[in-house]
This record gives sequence, C-alpha cells and structure tokens, in this order.
Amino acid sequence: MTADSPAEALARLAAERVDHRFKGLPPDADGHTVAELAAERRNLFTGGFATPVLALSAERLEHNLALMETYATRHGLAFAPHGKTTMAPQLFHRQIERGAWGITLAVPHQVRVARAFGVRRVFLANELVDPAALRWISRELDTDPGFRFICYVDSVRGAELMDAALRGASRPLDVVVEFGAGEGARTGVRTEAECAAVADAVAGTRTLRLVGVAGYEGEVPRADPERVHAWLRRLVGLAVDFDKAGRFAGLDEIVVSAGGSAWFDAVADVFAEIPELSAPVLKLLRSGAYVSHDDGHYRKVTPFNRVPEEGALEPAFRLWAQVVSRPSAEQAFANAGKRDAAYDLDLPFAQVVHRDGAERPATGVSVTGLSDQHAWLRTSEDADLEVGDWLGMGLSHPCTSFDKWPLIPLVEADGTVVDYIRTFF
Amino acid sequence: MTADSPAEALARLAAERVDHRFKGLPPDADGHTVAELAAERRNLFTGGFATPVLALSAERLEHNLALMETYATRHGLAFAPHGKTTMAPQLFHRQIERGAWGITLAVPHQVRVARAFGVRRVFLANELVDPAALRWISRELDTDPGFRFICYVDSVRGAELMDAALRGASRPLDVVVEFGAGEGARTGVRTEAECAAVADAVAGTRTLRLVGVAGYEGEVPRADPERVHAWLRRLVGLAVDFDKAGRFAGLDEIVVSAGGSAWFDAVADVFAEIPELSAPVLKLLRSGAYVSHDDGHYRKVTPFNRVPEEGALEPAFRLWAQVVSRPSAEQAFANAGKRDAAYDLDLPFAQVVHRDGAERPATGVSVTGLSDQHAWLRTSEDADLEVGDWLGMGLSHPCTSFDKWPLIPLVEADGTVVDYIRTFF
Repeated sequence: MTADSPAEALARLAAERVDHRFKGLPPDADGHTVAELAAERRNLFTGGFATPVLALSAERLEHNLALMETYATRHGLAFAPHGKTTMAPQLFHRQIERGAWGITLAVPHQVRVARAFGVRRVFLANELVDPAALRWISRELDTDPGFRFICYVDSVRGAELMDAALRGASRPLDVVVEFGAGEGARTGVRTEAECAAVADAVAGTRTLRLVGVAGYEGEVPRADPERVHAWLRRLVGLAVDFDKAGRFAGLDEIVVSAGGSAWFDAVADVFAEIPELSAPVLKLLRSGAYVSHDDGHYRKVTPFNRVPEEGALEPAFRLWAQVVSRPSAEQAFANAGKRDAAYDLDLPFAQVVHRDGAERPATGVSVTGLSDQHAWLRTSEDADLEVGDWLGMGLSHPCTSFDKWPLIPLVEADGTVVDYIRTFF
Repeated sequence: MTADSPAEALARLAAERVDHRFKGLPPDADGHTVAELAAERRNLFTGGFATPVLALSAERLEHNLALMETYATRHGLAFAPHGKTTMAPQLFHRQIERGAWGITLAVPHQVRVARAFGVRRVFLANELVDPAALRWISRELDTDPGFRFICYVDSVRGAELMDAALRGASRPLDVVVEFGAGEGARTGVRTEAECAAVADAVAGTRTLRLVGVAGYEGEVPRADPERVHAWLRRLVGLAVDFDKAGRFAGLDEIVVSAGGSAWFDAVADVFAEIPELSAPVLKLLRSGAYVSHDDGHYRKVTPFNRVPEEGALEPAFRLWAQVVSRPSAEQAFANAGKRDAAYDLDLPFAQVVHRDGAERPATGVSVTGLSDQHAWLRTSEDADLEVGDWLGMGLSHPCTSFDKWPLIPLVEADGTVVDYIRTFF
C-alpha cells in the first residue's frame, strides 16, 4: 500500500467518529467527528468528559517541541525523535515541521504506522530480520523513491538473514552497525573487531548498504557523564576507523547516531568533535520522551538539569481521575489504574484537586498503589478529599503513558480542549 | 445512541479493514477485512505475521469458557464475568451465549463498549458519581427497556451525587451497597452500621433503587480460606439483615455478588448457604481472568488448585517475539517489551523456540527484564538460540496482556489462525 500524503492521512484522523473506541471522551459526543468535537472547544471539566481522562497540555507540548528543535539546531544535530514514545502521527508531523530529519522507530509495526501517514524518513533502531517485514519495507522502497529507511545490523547472522529475505530487491537496504554500550548492556555488537566482521558481512551482500554506525548511550553500564562520554567517543572512533578503511566509499552522507532522553548533552559534546570524514556526517539524535516529558523519571534524568542555561522541558501530561470511594479517613480510591497510568518506573503523583470549578494543591494526598482500574490514595489529616472530586496526577515515563490512550485531549491552561491526539499501539 | 443488535455490531468488527492499527498482522493483508483474513486460515508462523504477535489459543479459550459455565451452573451461581479483563465484545457474547447473566465492568467507558455491542445486562463494580456518565446511563435505560444496569454505592455522599445527577430520570438506577473487605482493603463500606446508613441514603432518593449487596473477597487482608469464608459470611449476613429490615421489599430478585478469580470456590461454598429471602436471590459471580488464564499469578492462585476434581483452567496466551540480537553467549534480545507483555505481576516465561518450522522447549532461556520494546534474555550453556528464532513466552496477568493488543489472532494448536479478537481499551 503506497503511503498517502500526510495531509490526506491526517485529515482521515480528523474525520474519525468519536465512539466507544476512545475512553475519556464525552458520551454525548458519540458520532461527532474528531474535528467537529475539537471545533466545539469544550472545557475538560464541564464539557462532559468522563473520568479517567488523560490531558496533554497544548502549551507545554508546544514548548517542548520548540525547545528540542532549538537544542538540536544549536548543536548541529539532525533530529529523528523516537516515535515509539508517542506513536502519534500528528506529533510525528509536528516534529517534522519543526525540522526533524525523520522519525526513529523500534519495530516494523511502528514503521507501518509512520508510512500510513506519509513519513518519508525512518530510522529503525533495531536489527530487522523478519522476512515478511523486510519484504514489506522493500516494497515501500520500490514504490516510493523518496522513502529513506535505515536500520541496525548487529550480527553476521542478522546480515545473512536480511540478505536472504531481500534477494531480488531493486534498492539496497541502508544499515548502520549497532555498537553495544558495554558488557551486559542491551543490543549491539560488543567490540570494534566484531563490528568490522559485521560490516564485512554487509559488504558481502548486494542487498544491504552500510551507511554508518549507531548505538544507545542510555544503556552504558553504571552510566555517569564520564562513562557515557567515553562510550560515545568509541562510537565516533568506530565511524572514523570504518571511514579510513573505505567502508563508506561512495556515500553521499555518513550516519552517526545516538541519543535517548537522558544523555543528549553528552551526545552533543562528543558529536561536535567528529572529525571530517570522506562524506558529510548526518549526526542523528533520537530522543523521544521530551514530547510530553514527565513528573518522575525524566524530570530526574533530563540533561537540562546539567545545562539549565539551555532551557527546561515541562511535564505536559496530567491524568484526571475521580474519587469514587472514601472508606476511611486514611484512604480514598480514584477510578484510574494500571489501564490508565504509567506504573513501571514510579506511581503517579497526586498534584491537584478539582471540585466545583476550583482547583487547589492535593495537599496530604499520595498515590500508594494501582489496581487494574483503581488508584489507591493515602490521605493525611490535612487532606480535603471527597467522593466526586477530580484528582489531577502527574506521571512518570511518557512511553507507558501514551500507550494507554488511543485519543488524548490536547488542553489549554484554562481547560479548553483544542484538539485530540490519536495514537496507534 | 441506541445499542445495535449484537449481530450487527459484531458484523461491523468482522468488516473492519486490517491496517496499521493492528500490530502483529501480516503486512500483505493490509486492506483485507478481518473476516477475509480469517477465511484465509493463515498459519501463524508461515503466513506473514510480524513479530511481536500475541496468540490466543482457540482450543484453550473454548475449554476455559466451557469450564466456568459448568462451574457456575453446578454451584447455582449466576455469572457476570468481569469484562475489564478482555474488553473484547466477541468474548462478551461467547460468555453470554454460554449462559452468563451479563457482563461486569469497572468504569463507564467500558459500559459504552458493552452497549455498543448490544450487551443487555451490566454490573458496574464501582460507585458511579460522574454526572456525564450517569446521564448517559440514564438515557440508555430510558431508550432500552431491556437494559439492566446495576452499580455500587459505598457512601452517603455517593448516593447524594448520584441522586443529583439523575433527577428527572424516568427509571431509577439499581444499586447494591458495596461492603468493604476489611480495614485497609479497597473500596466499600467498612462496617454493617455504615452500610445501613448508605442504604438509608439510597432509600431517601427517588432516583436510586437498592437491589442487593456486593463486595470483592479478593481484597480481604491477609487472605486465606478461613478469612475469605468469614468475610463472605458477613456479606451474606448483611443481605439477610437488610432483607429482614424490609430494605428489599417489592423486588423481583435480590442481588448478592462477589467473586474474582482467586476465591470463587469460597464464594460457591458460602453462597450455597444463603437462606431463603423475601425474593429469589441472584447469586452473581464476577470472575474474569479465567478466559485466557495465565502462566503465572493466576496459575498459582486459581481455586481449581484446591478443587482439582472440578477441572483445571488452561493458559491460553502465548506471546511470540523474534530474537533480534545475540551479543554474547549469556545474552539475547527479543523484539517484545513492555508494549507487548504483561509485566506488573511477573516477567514473561520463555517456553518454546520456533526455528525453520520446528518447535522445541526454550531450554536454558529465561526472561530477565523488559525494556519498552525489548525482552532481555539470559541464556545458559545449553541454550540453542539464534538471531531470527521465534521465542514463545507465557504471560502472567490476563488483564495487562489483553490491554496491549487491539486485535489478537485466535490460533489453533497447529498454528492455523481461525479468527481475530478485537479489544477496546
């Protein structure tokens, strides 16, 4: 299936009907299109939305998108934000409109989503050895000369399996050797010598084309600035050695890629030192979590804590749940649980209480656990929390927040819902 | 919006187009309807499916559905399986066809899904105080005289909020007082005296009708058979006291409900002892996890371990992922992660390896962690695992497995995919 134009594909999203597929939305909006509902500019608190409902701040989203564009530009980095975080084609295109080179993804299904919405450049941060997926990618490359696709290769066997699946393809598949972040780290070739063997295997095929090197500094064991910088220098050194060995001969550009959401300052440092190679270098940063940022893990680990003069990301999610039980002075329960909130890195953070149109801090309220459909709340003596109140919670880990919500209201500071963000997980 | 007939609504599911919304499905099936793809009876391993892909065993599903129908019938229990587990209308209707009274649900959005697929009887195992949701439920009751809806009430304030939202409704809303499972347990009124106060509050409205009592024995603190039986006897005692007090006067039936997936043997025991009340008693069991059962938590806690003579549930899920990296003799990585597998109670269990059409036990392979999109595998010396292999994993916790897959292949033992189960989370 050929990719549609982004405008056509996004217009189809706007024309989707609001119905039972989308939790949190107003029951009386059933049958409206998403565009019609957005045009009504309903208020999140008075517009009939049902709890639980996840709200994405329109202003903070905009701020975060702008900040990372500025950051990448300032540091001479191309940007392929990791789309696995949001899996939201509307956000992919806002990232691309802001200058992103393309979108990074993790598995072939995610590439299908991107292609269905006309994304032209995809960096797949995984080795891809699935024959059915490879043949599909190959067809996409054949039918769309403007489609650029790069994926990892991290083993000789991987190169062989890819080659076997791609025989007969008219365009070779661009690959980068994935260099592992250390002993016991995640995927990636462990040593420079093994990287060379994998590159040799690639060179021995007609179906694959080696275009660079990549890795993920987020998995450096016992990561600290020194160890992360050291590993990034090894990655750059690998690119330099490959280039000297003529492995990139004939390329228009050489790809060197790294960068999650915890160490992009180190990536910027080290990639600034990349020497001149035989072709221009595409220095590709892949951070994804910045879009919504968070109130937990990424608030702690964001590089902007180390470089505050370059700005600060803003947590853009607030999960609203309603208090449905208050069985004792020490306990309350809200109607959001594991189905609605990220819980893999931290529990949600009780932030504000909304009652009768007024909002105040959630003093004395803390989340102590999640059931499938309930949040367990502990309340101290100074807590003022009643059945019926809406509790606004911050979340930790954007990736496991987006993936629980197929259609997310985009909400301005005054509560006006201005749009809806569709996700595909 | 009036509910469609179940047949019409399910036919719309069968007519949905396979596309980027559904991970795991064959890329070359894009544009087929689900019914057309099912009719092709593709093989899961050779039919072009992309990894990761979750498979639901057709035979085991059927076995589990039949076993719980038999169990409920044998013990004189009505059955409202908890639909939050699967959120799959096709499975709701298979449960109803097998004699289920209706479907239990947790939040209003789930009721919308059930109503969109023509489910006539819904037990909402939560207090419902959201005005927008209450008005929607009220409209559903007004427009469909055959719709039966029961929800919890667990506070005087809850009764007041419900009453305020429902003023002017033509049919009263049926409620059961939720009796909490103990100090520090989840939702529900803590003492019999408070239950009476809540019942008084209900009786003081014209919009609510008290139809029984309910609770969830799964939250009994330090649960063991003795404590669970004791709490269930208190629940039954509450129903008896309410009946003696004339609180159920004029009802056609009195509802007494309990029963998750860990203690339904105790529910069967204690509900068998319910004495004659002023109206017939609807003894409503609400277990939901049995549909797929699992290889972890529910395998350990299922009541069938205590009553093996009554049968045994069979774990029906197998998550297939592909090995995409084998960076050392001790490590491998497969392309399924937190987006694909339940991880809240246990990590997935490596079970079998599929290579070149042959399947064998995953000897020496264990899952040690999950990233968003990767499974971390430890391999011992006797492990035979290569890049490209498919690894079949068992899961723990049906509720957090179903919710990661919008369309799940239903697979027979020989690998033939015979249908696709749609979920709405």
